[in-house]
Amino acid sequence: MLQVLCSTALIASSFSGQFAFAATVNEEKIDLDLITKLRDEAMNRSKAQEIMGVLTDEIGPRLTGSPALRKAGDWTRSKMSEWGLQNIHSESFAPFGRGWTLEKTTLRMVVPSQVDLYAIPKAWTPGTDGLQRGKLVIAKIAAEEDLAKWKGKLAGAIVMLDDPLPIKPRVKADAHRYSHDELGELSKIDFDPAPSRRGDMQTYVKRFMFAKKLRAFLMEEKVLATLNVTRGEDGTIFVQDGGSYKKGELTGPPNLVVATETYNRLYRLVEKKKTVELEIDVKATFNDEDPEAAINVLAEITGTDKKDEIVMLGAHLDSWHGGTGATDNAAGVAMAMEAMRLLKASGFKPRRTIRIALWGGEEQGLLGSRAYVNKWVASRPEPTDPKELELPSFARKPTGPLSIKPMHGKISAYFNLDNGGGKIRGIYAENNAALKPIFDAWLAPFHDVGATTTTLRSTGSTDHVSFDRVGVPGFQFIQDDMDYFSRTHHSSVDVYDKVQKSDLTQASMVLASFVAHAANRNDMLPRKPMPKDPPQDEKKDEAKVAEETAK
Amino acid sequence: MLQVLCSTALIASSFSGQFAFAATVNEEKIDLDLITKLRDEAMNRSKAQEIMGVLTDEIGPRLTGSPALRKAGDWTRSKMSEWGLQNIHSESFAPFGRGWTLEKTTLRMVVPSQVDLYAIPKAWTPGTDGLQRGKLVIAKIAAEEDLAKWKGKLAGAIVMLDDPLPIKPRVKADAHRYSHDELGELSKIDFDPAPSRRGDMQTYVKRFMFAKKLRAFLMEEKVLATLNVTRGEDGTIFVQDGGSYKKGELTGPPNLVVATETYNRLYRLVEKKKTVELEIDVKATFNDEDPEAAINVLAEITGTDKKDEIVMLGAHLDSWHGGTGATDNAAGVAMAMEAMRLLKASGFKPRRTIRIALWGGEEQGLLGSRAYVNKWVASRPEPTDPKELELPSFARKPTGPLSIKPMHGKISAYFNLDNGGGKIRGIYAENNAALKPIFDAWLAPFHDVGATTTTLRSTGSTDHVSFDRVGVPGFQFIQDDMDYFSRTHHSSVDVYDKVQKSDLTQASMVLASFVAHAANRNDMLPRKPMPKDPPQDEKKDEAKVAEETAK
Repeated sequence: MLQVLCSTALIASSFSGQFAFAATVNEEKIDLDLITKLRDEAMNRSKAQEIMGVLTDEIGPRLTGSPALRKAGDWTRSKMSEWGLQNIHSESFAPFGRGWTLEKTTLRMVVPSQVDLYAIPKAWTPGTDGLQRGKLVIAKIAAEEDLAKWKGKLAGAIVMLDDPLPIKPRVKADAHRYSHDELGELSKIDFDPAPSRRGDMQTYVKRFMFAKKLRAFLMEEKVLATLNVTRGEDGTIFVQDGGSYKKGELTGPPNLVVATETYNRLYRLVEKKKTVELEIDVKATFNDEDPEAAINVLAEITGTDKKDEIVMLGAHLDSWHGGTGATDNAAGVAMAMEAMRLLKASGFKPRRTIRIALWGGEEQGLLGSRAYVNKWVASRPEPTDPKELELPSFARKPTGPLSIKPMHGKISAYFNLDNGGGKIRGIYAENNAALKPIFDAWLAPFHDVGATTTTLRSTGSTDHVSFDRVGVPGFQFIQDDMDYFSRTHHSSVDVYDKVQKSDLTQASMVLASFVAHAANRNDMLPRKPMPKDPPQDEKKDEAKVAEETAK
Repeated sequence: MLQVLCSTALIASSFSGQFAFAATVNEEKIDLDLITKLRDEAMNRSKAQEIMGVLTDEIGPRLTGSPALRKAGDWTRSKMSEWGLQNIHSESFAPFGRGWTLEKTTLRMVVPSQVDLYAIPKAWTPGTDGLQRGKLVIAKIAAEEDLAKWKGKLAGAIVMLDDPLPIKPRVKADAHRYSHDELGELSKIDFDPAPSRRGDMQTYVKRFMFAKKLRAFLMEEKVLATLNVTRGEDGTIFVQDGGSYKKGELTGPPNLVVATETYNRLYRLVEKKKTVELEIDVKATFNDEDPEAAINVLAEITGTDKKDEIVMLGAHLDSWHGGTGATDNAAGVAMAMEAMRLLKASGFKPRRTIRIALWGGEEQGLLGSRAYVNKWVASRPEPTDPKELELPSFARKPTGPLSIKPMHGKISAYFNLDNGGGKIRGIYAENNAALKPIFDAWLAPFHDVGATTTTLRSTGSTDHVSFDRVGVPGFQFIQDDMDYFSRTHHSSVDVYDKVQKSDLTQASMVLASFVAHAANRNDMLPRKPMPKDPPQDEKKDEAKVAEETAK
């Protein structure tokens, strides 16, 4: 394996003016021979789209706890075994709870006229008992005091819970790739970021607690079904969960998300005092707890002289159910699996062990990666406050102290892909300034395919966070948005056709190279200072939050 | 009624540089007092959105020949009667053929997994005999020679007739308003227009003839249903007709249009040799011929000193069935009806009679307006060639000579609105140079609301053509496209929410003012030379076309 010093000339020719730390860049060795092989294999014999095709078209949506996720686990393991990867296995993070599989949805207006309506049930909400018919009622039940107002008035009704959602002309394109200027902007630190997650979490917890009460109320009142509106338009439906996957918890009545234009029409008809009746027929199965449907899939290319040290890469295998989980996140899985295949096919012998992780339970709060980190890397004590225990784990306040496990010192980095199906345009360095020159160097050979930008910004909400928050370097790439947030993210059109083959190819080769360079670097990647345990004064703060939450 | 001379000062202040014919503009009298009243009534007490709400949300799609179009006729007449319009009546253009009403559509994959599919039956195709199940087969049957190949192989199958439709990222915004520069471009004559309609028509005729044979074949073969793909994405389905509205003609089997992403997925599964089975349940009713469901609705504000002369305005009342026919063309109907209401509410006394026409059968080839023009204005002889008679009237070759009827000399102009729900930005003057200064003058008071541009270009494909082609001035306005061609035109999302209230308001007041100024002008609008009858040498040409068609 020839390792070539990455010269200033190479960098300058590929993307002049990008490198503020050009001097440091020279200290990172870039294996151009390997990169040539990875690029050749990716561009001429990519399997990424094929992998994504099996996960989306064939296996379909892969809700955690459900047979499809088990199937996806079986298939990915067997595929990676074909490629000769090592130590292929699943780790279950059971007990998770129930799975849920949607089989059939019919929603139709039958009075005043016959109209097929387009709607998708929320996950973990029950089906109807066959074909039912009910009167449509608008009932905004948004807080405790609304419950009394509607008591005794909703039996047998189909209830519209939301206001209509005004539709504005879509004068902005759905799909978008980063421009050079936008990447430049992204590489600057934002000193005035969006409101803190703490504020959002407080709202979330309030809503979470009220939703439980509302589900019980609606069931007591024998409501036939409830409808919510979606922010989607043109037939796109965004849909997540409506009930609980925990066995024994109340599911509420059948709860569907209706396409915006349809919801608005129904709402206007009821507002005009028209009698509107709908027919509804939803068949959905709660699957029994299955430890093999609540899993992380792991596989390795075993290292050589530093094989006890690990470089990880991954994406999440689970998805929501509205589409087939293509951009979120079969694309990431396909890119990561393909990166492993590229490394294997190129004959690369890593010094450190390269480990791929395909997580389950990401959509329910990074459950798979959290369980993995808790078990092997570092963990915090469970909260003792019963109110906290009622909340999903991602919504709980941090506890301390952190207890460190042996693997903590062995993971050089974890690289995650979960920003849709777009090309890699750079990487979030998570406020670790020491990484900027390293990542810049690793990106240099990929400027011609659009991967150029290291930002010190941090980014949230997916599985790299499980590593970052215990002090292990965890990263997420900058990817072209495409129509991820406008159309596909958790929606009915998160499907195969929304991911371009060229994007899969590019991302898989960039990822493979990042992982290879992390694996063969002399040192592990530099780390930030360890995260601090929650301080005493923050605990006082938390008491205040808990009080407000109880209101 | 105060009539104020439209001064150069007014025009210059409202949109400097727009007027190449400023001297001529001064000869057109502009009634600014009336315009103030129209603007006030439109902007503060508009009923246009309410009208559109009844037509779309309440009455729903209004397919020609169907009960909903009859209902729309009843409702619009009664509404215009409330406003005190005169001579309110319908004129039937029966015999049209059968109506068709969709009641229910279910399409689901049941093997290899359970997936709700999103599809809409084509108009005038039959329902299934209750819930059916069939194997999915790809069979491209595009020409005569394919029939033999598939004979005996398709019984009980659900047949995919189209290739999959690749999806490209939507990097262009769905909705768009004309920029100043684009309007400038539109006001220039295009010397190199798109291929002539004659060429397109030849292809159409070929397809039309083959479609008949295909329908017969598919029925003989006892195909359970056929599927086509749509150019729509993200859940939008574009759908028109699949069978014939003529009684006695073969309908073919049930024929559905499937959402692009869904169609592509099904296609890929079958291509991978997976066994795919679908469940299908379509309930659609062929409505008996009803003369009152094949109508034009007419109403007037009777003129004064020139009441025998007529200024017409209109839009079409019928629609396709995928959405609720909002942009095509409840919006136009609402703008035109509202224009009549504005004129009435402002106390305007026209010199000429103002007549509104709400056409039926536009979507089947301008049937309503053609019938009206044939009956009252001018007509050409029916073709004698039986092959020509087999074609829908819009696809037949022109005949001659034109016979002129009394109303021909009495209609000053017909103003049509059928370019979606967007604001009026100008008008197509249909190559009549004499109209440029007149229309420019009439637009001057509306520059501040975006209506600025007279183009000599002609535009096609809707009811003004029925007038223009017999030599009576017929016009269509330039309207902001919005997402008409990208999303709503003949689609599942051609619904109420896709039209903005402000656009309806603007268009109705501009239209009202145009009509009023045409009604009170001293002279009728100048006309182009009469259209020529088809020449002898073109008839030779036609023989050639017929020959090729027969192939």
